Amino acid sequence: MLDDALSNEILAAVDAGFDKQVSYTRDLVRFPSLRGQEHTAQDFVFESLRERGLAMDRWAIDVADIERHPGFSPVKVDYTNAINVVGTHRPREEKGRSLILNGHIDVVPEGPYEMWSRHPFDPHVEGDWMYGRGAADMKAGVAANVFALDALHALGYRPAARVHVQSVTEEECTGNGALSCLVRGYKADAAIIPEPEDDMLVRANVGVLWFRVHVKGVPVHVRDAGAGANSIEASFPIISALRRLEEEWNQEKSGQKYFDELDHPINFNVGKIAGGDWASSVPSWCSFDCRISIFPGWNPAEKAREIEACITAAANESPFLSNNPPKVEWNGFFAEGYVLEEGSDAELTLGRAHAKSYGASLETQVTPGYLDGRVFVLYGDCPCLVYGPYSENIHAFDERVSLSSVKRVTGTIALFVAEWCGLERL
Amino acid sequence: MLDDALSNEILAAVDAGFDKQVSYTRDLVRFPSLRGQEHTAQDFVFESLRERGLAMDRWAIDVADIERHPGFSPVKVDYTNAINVVGTHRPREEKGRSLILNGHIDVVPEGPYEMWSRHPFDPHVEGDWMYGRGAADMKAGVAANVFALDALHALGYRPAARVHVQSVTEEECTGNGALSCLVRGYKADAAIIPEPEDDMLVRANVGVLWFRVHVKGVPVHVRDAGAGANSIEASFPIISALRRLEEEWNQEKSGQKYFDELDHPINFNVGKIAGGDWASSVPSWCSFDCRISIFPGWNPAEKAREIEACITAAANESPFLSNNPPKVEWNGFFAEGYVLEEGSDAELTLGRAHAKSYGASLETQVTPGYLDGRVFVLYGDCPCLVYGPYSENIHAFDERVSLSSVKRVTGTIALFVAEWCGLERL
Repeated sequence: MLDDALSNEILAAVDAGFDKQVSYTRDLVRFPSLRGQEHTAQDFVFESLRERGLAMDRWAIDVADIERHPGFSPVKVDYTNAINVVGTHRPREEKGRSLILNGHIDVVPEGPYEMWSRHPFDPHVEGDWMYGRGAADMKAGVAANVFALDALHALGYRPAARVHVQSVTEEECTGNGALSCLVRGYKADAAIIPEPEDDMLVRANVGVLWFRVHVKGVPVHVRDAGAGANSIEASFPIISALRRLEEEWNQEKSGQKYFDELDHPINFNVGKIAGGDWASSVPSWCSFDCRISIFPGWNPAEKAREIEACITAAANESPFLSNNPPKVEWNGFFAEGYVLEEGSDAELTLGRAHAKSYGASLETQVTPGYLDGRVFVLYGDCPCLVYGPYSENIHAFDERVSLSSVKRVTGTIALFVAEWCGLERL
Repeated sequence: MLDDALSNEILAAVDAGFDKQVSYTRDLVRFPSLRGQEHTAQDFVFESLRERGLAMDRWAIDVADIERHPGFSPVKVDYTNAINVVGTHRPREEKGRSLILNGHIDVVPEGPYEMWSRHPFDPHVEGDWMYGRGAADMKAGVAANVFALDALHALGYRPAARVHVQSVTEEECTGNGALSCLVRGYKADAAIIPEPEDDMLVRANVGVLWFRVHVKGVPVHVRDAGAGANSIEASFPIISALRRLEEEWNQEKSGQKYFDELDHPINFNVGKIAGGDWASSVPSWCSFDCRISIFPGWNPAEKAREIEACITAAANESPFLSNNPPKVEWNGFFAEGYVLEEGSDAELTLGRAHAKSYGASLETQVTPGYLDGRVFVLYGDCPCLVYGPYSENIHAFDERVSLSSVKRVTGTIALFVAEWCGLERL
């Protein structure tokens, strides 16, 4: 337990450093760290951690290193620039418990610029809000990890245990970034990921599957349209069948601890589509990208087979598709969900830190989206505290994060480090 | 009426030149003259006509020249390389009737290469077939125009009337290439377009409209999928509504001379779709490209309003779309259909030439696809004979044209020129 005076000093130091923290966050948001182009932002993070005296490690994810791990997700892109960055602090003497402070640098596509009030990569602050793609999800969190340690440093302290500050790629599509850190050997007694979780701790979290469905048509001149099968329209009943599968899976929520209270824990999404080449040619191809979630404990490979069976059954309803079966390509998330067991020391420590920073008790929630937390909990034997600031419109337009919330989250993390790791003088 | 001996000489000359004609056609097919990149093929045609001693004209379509013409189709692309080529023959003395030999150089997209048996722009001949994108539609026709004149030339003759050999762009999307020739002043007593019409003459032809529908969604993280509207799935009921409109329009065929015997003269096609950016984000946009035909006599602007009303009515069925109405963009064909009046001198002349070349009488057909013939018939006061070789798989994979049919068509054209224009000695 931290004494009250030190706690107050730490929170005051977070407050004192917050202008710099906001400026650092804006610098991060300016990097358009979309998938495949995270590396420039990662080099910035690398420099900023190196300047702080951490021992640096930087590598590109190598599929060969992780592809046999049960947490691996299939990947169809080049990883040459999928750079992970880890800065490690080692104390003079290991007195406390080790910790990983993790965040992801990748952001989801910004969509059409005209639907944003301002340019998505031109972060701006208005009142309590910072706007920009990735401001909430989760560059504010990456910065919070760094500035929590800075606050301790400003008071003449550093952690009395090993701390790894991780900035990873691929959280929005495969989770292979965090997995690559684990396989490289990064382990600790606890982990924190300041994802935008509205000031709450994530108790449980779905798994996620990504897949692309390829539908072929029989192209003809539109004057003979009756002779061809339109690959775009042939895709509709397949999407409808997947919507029915989503409802079936939701009906299994009653057996799922933590999820049974949610209205609609399993969400299917068709997020991208492309097909055909010419208005006057019956389209010969159509591909669409899907995402669906699964309950913790459900096996991705088993559920993948159910999805394939669902698509085959839908195709068999159509004379054309039954002879031209769609192909399913597993091209991303192939991830189990997880449950953070109640009552761990790490959670209790977070609860105390949160109570001090917020003046309110820590609440938990269940999230129906993928989180890298599963890597730590399922494969690292490590309680992972996914806990972070209040936000709006993540993955949408005018994404924004509450700066007062970010400051309190940073205070919580700093207090957590001080208690969990202990402190030593610089 | 041509005498039989001369007719036989002309057909023999076509036969003698046919190897060269096939070689020229292959050269043409090698140019990937997709929309926006027709110019290299056009420069080849220009050179080949110039070498033959024609007076050459070559220009880029200027929208300002044609946009107030009632036959104009709206255009969303740059026309810098939309080059038209016309070679003109003028006789020493105008004795016969003038003629336009027209063809289009543009081809439709080839689609995924893996669906072709061979590379689409690597023409090859197998038995009676020449394969390749554009081989049938309509580079064989462009070549037939050139080699019909060559056959006469080989016999020491040339037409005794003005002949314009036109190679135009934009036939597959707007018809603005042929229109630009008309507006530039090219007129004649008859025109021939050797489109792939299976050895028949086109009696009547639908008009065509192109449009793109833009559907906006409300993007959110898929974990809140219920809060967003999926722009991809919101597009499905609009496409279904357009299919119902297609059926309604088909039911009006009974009043349409020549079309009432066709099963399904009006064809709607959704030919291209694109939407969304990320599997795990509810897509915020989806656009799809459509094509529908209209009966001759139907006004494009009126029918465009019907289409817009159909889309609005479908949108009003959905709470989301009624507040976020789709936008319709008219981005191509805005073209009326036409009927070739029976009994013209031009048609009778073609009938005689065909009978001689084929040993069979000329049949006519009605085509449910756009043809540049409408420019001549509707706006040029010129009987236009759309008549050409047997083909398979145009706008599809392994497009192919029958070479024996091409040879006979070339013979027909040569005989037509000899009778219609008359001949003078070189």
